[in-house]
Amino acid sequence: MEYRDAGVRLEAAEEATRRIRAALRTALTPEVLAGVGAFAGALDADRLKSYAHPVLLASTDGVGTKTLLAVRAGRLRGLGHDLVNHGVDDLLAAGGWPLFFLDYLAADRLNPQAVAELVEGVAEAARAAGMPVLGGETAEMPGVYRRGAVDLAGTIVGVAERSELPDPSRVRPGDRILALPSSGPHTNGYSLIRRVIGDRDLFAPCPELGGASLADRLLAPHRSYLPEWRRLRAAELLPKVAAHITGGGVYGNLPRVLPPGLGAVLRRGSWSEPPVFAFLKNLGGIPDREMFAVFNMGLGMLLVYDPASAEQVLGLVDEAQAVGEVVEGQGVVVEGVDG
Amino acid sequence: MEYRDAGVRLEAAEEATRRIRAALRTALTPEVLAGVGAFAGALDADRLKSYAHPVLLASTDGVGTKTLLAVRAGRLRGLGHDLVNHGVDDLLAAGGWPLFFLDYLAADRLNPQAVAELVEGVAEAARAAGMPVLGGETAEMPGVYRRGAVDLAGTIVGVAERSELPDPSRVRPGDRILALPSSGPHTNGYSLIRRVIGDRDLFAPCPELGGASLADRLLAPHRSYLPEWRRLRAAELLPKVAAHITGGGVYGNLPRVLPPGLGAVLRRGSWSEPPVFAFLKNLGGIPDREMFAVFNMGLGMLLVYDPASAEQVLGLVDEAQAVGEVVEGQGVVVEGVDG
Repeated sequence: MEYRDAGVRLEAAEEATRRIRAALRTALTPEVLAGVGAFAGALDADRLKSYAHPVLLASTDGVGTKTLLAVRAGRLRGLGHDLVNHGVDDLLAAGGWPLFFLDYLAADRLNPQAVAELVEGVAEAARAAGMPVLGGETAEMPGVYRRGAVDLAGTIVGVAERSELPDPSRVRPGDRILALPSSGPHTNGYSLIRRVIGDRDLFAPCPELGGASLADRLLAPHRSYLPEWRRLRAAELLPKVAAHITGGGVYGNLPRVLPPGLGAVLRRGSWSEPPVFAFLKNLGGIPDREMFAVFNMGLGMLLVYDPASAEQVLGLVDEAQAVGEVVEGQGVVVEGVDG
Repeated sequence: MEYRDAGVRLEAAEEATRRIRAALRTALTPEVLAGVGAFAGALDADRLKSYAHPVLLASTDGVGTKTLLAVRAGRLRGLGHDLVNHGVDDLLAAGGWPLFFLDYLAADRLNPQAVAELVEGVAEAARAAGMPVLGGETAEMPGVYRRGAVDLAGTIVGVAERSELPDPSRVRPGDRILALPSSGPHTNGYSLIRRVIGDRDLFAPCPELGGASLADRLLAPHRSYLPEWRRLRAAELLPKVAAHITGGGVYGNLPRVLPPGLGAVLRRGSWSEPPVFAFLKNLGGIPDREMFAVFNMGLGMLLVYDPASAEQVLGLVDEAQAVGEVVEGQGVVVEGVDG
């Protein structure tokens, strides 16, 4: 829990440091060992011994250039949620359950309030995921970052029972594909988004967005699917495989969890697309195919089930939608986009 | 092991991707579960069950603005070693042993060869530490980074037996402080270094450096103390506490592992200072006190032992040097610097 290189100074810095400490404390769990971590965070891992065969899972990721939009809008707290929830969803798709999180935050100059707001967002999302922020680093690096720019990276570490890991070899033609909805672009496609929106007012109400502003719709935090996952686990209805739809859209992410010889058909219209995608498409004149190759298009997470289990899941999780099937072949076809 | 957002393209990119894959393969261990990690890397953690009480330790860190000097010199491989070895040493000081590593690499534009060279460095150092690179992310973010600039962050995760964690409460006045030598500035003080050296030729032989170049002396990789730690463990001579000397020098880092009411006296002249520090001091007119507050000054890692164990360690580890003692009081005094 070291923010010693933060370069946060004087009174503003002290206030920010207090906020950061208070925020990180809210995400503490009884497993965090205090007073050990002068050079590393420490987590009591005794519960791993209760696993028949524990597997550790880990993923590092950033939030891309969504940071630039958030800095422009002066809304940094959501980026903390983005960072954590992106990691949580990657972990869930890989079959893991959260153990702890670490963050890395770098900028040309660190504004103490901005750092505090970001870390508060990280801590809020980590607490919601029931995991502590075991470590963090903030680095001030003039000469590396552009003025006002910031970059964020996070690492999530989780655990799984080896026998419960997702297993692509269990996927069969005819399996149903269910979707959990996204809140918007999540953390992907922001270079394209920034090109398309140019210097438009981020705060003006947009009729095309039902009166919401671009800031509201484009900075909505990456959604965590942990609540749904917990309900699925309680009902013994975890998916055969799951794909977290990030950069590359459904074309890039769904094939990663399908075995050789199997592909997928998704039917456009079978799920609701957040209006911000049509807004971006129209404003930028972006072909549908490119939209689906860049954005999640409302499909935050795809889950694969045999037909009977799929019905049960649809009854259990209100927001889940049946969006397609596994088929012989390869790759992903989106009916209504790819013909 | 995803480098999917690398933006590495065409032939140069394919060659770089091959190099990256080959490099990461060399660091694989039998515990890495292949085919699981579509969205996260997976490590078989069954051996944790053999611990009486396992503790997971983790640390995230970057390499600061050493990146700018390395980019200028066109030597990126060493940065990979810096990133990994900094993490290894943080972990060792916290009492942990390496399990796995993840890296994050971002730049305005990614040069495929540069990425490959960096990741090769990461893989080489990870392999030397006996741990796999379980995940990685490369992000191309124009608008965030300055032209040609790159940032690197790494996360190390390790394990310890709870009863073997370092314990500041065991430190006593009169305990000896031993040092393991650094290779140079390691990864700290590079903003000051860049200011001091200005646009000097990085490759010209320097008489003050025994004919070595600035590039050779300033880009020497952060040294890993894992080989020494293994020998110490085999001899049951792990330190009571250890301080990895990073940003803040001995003043900032040694007190972090001393209990309240105890301080330390170090005697300048009792260890060898790499000549690059005197070179920087003279060139920049930097007071000694500032040198010791910014740089490790040759003290890469400090280890605290009772006097009898210290003697054994000095007999066991050739490079270890007795540099001071624990005393009543607080803070660190360097005799010959602080009077």
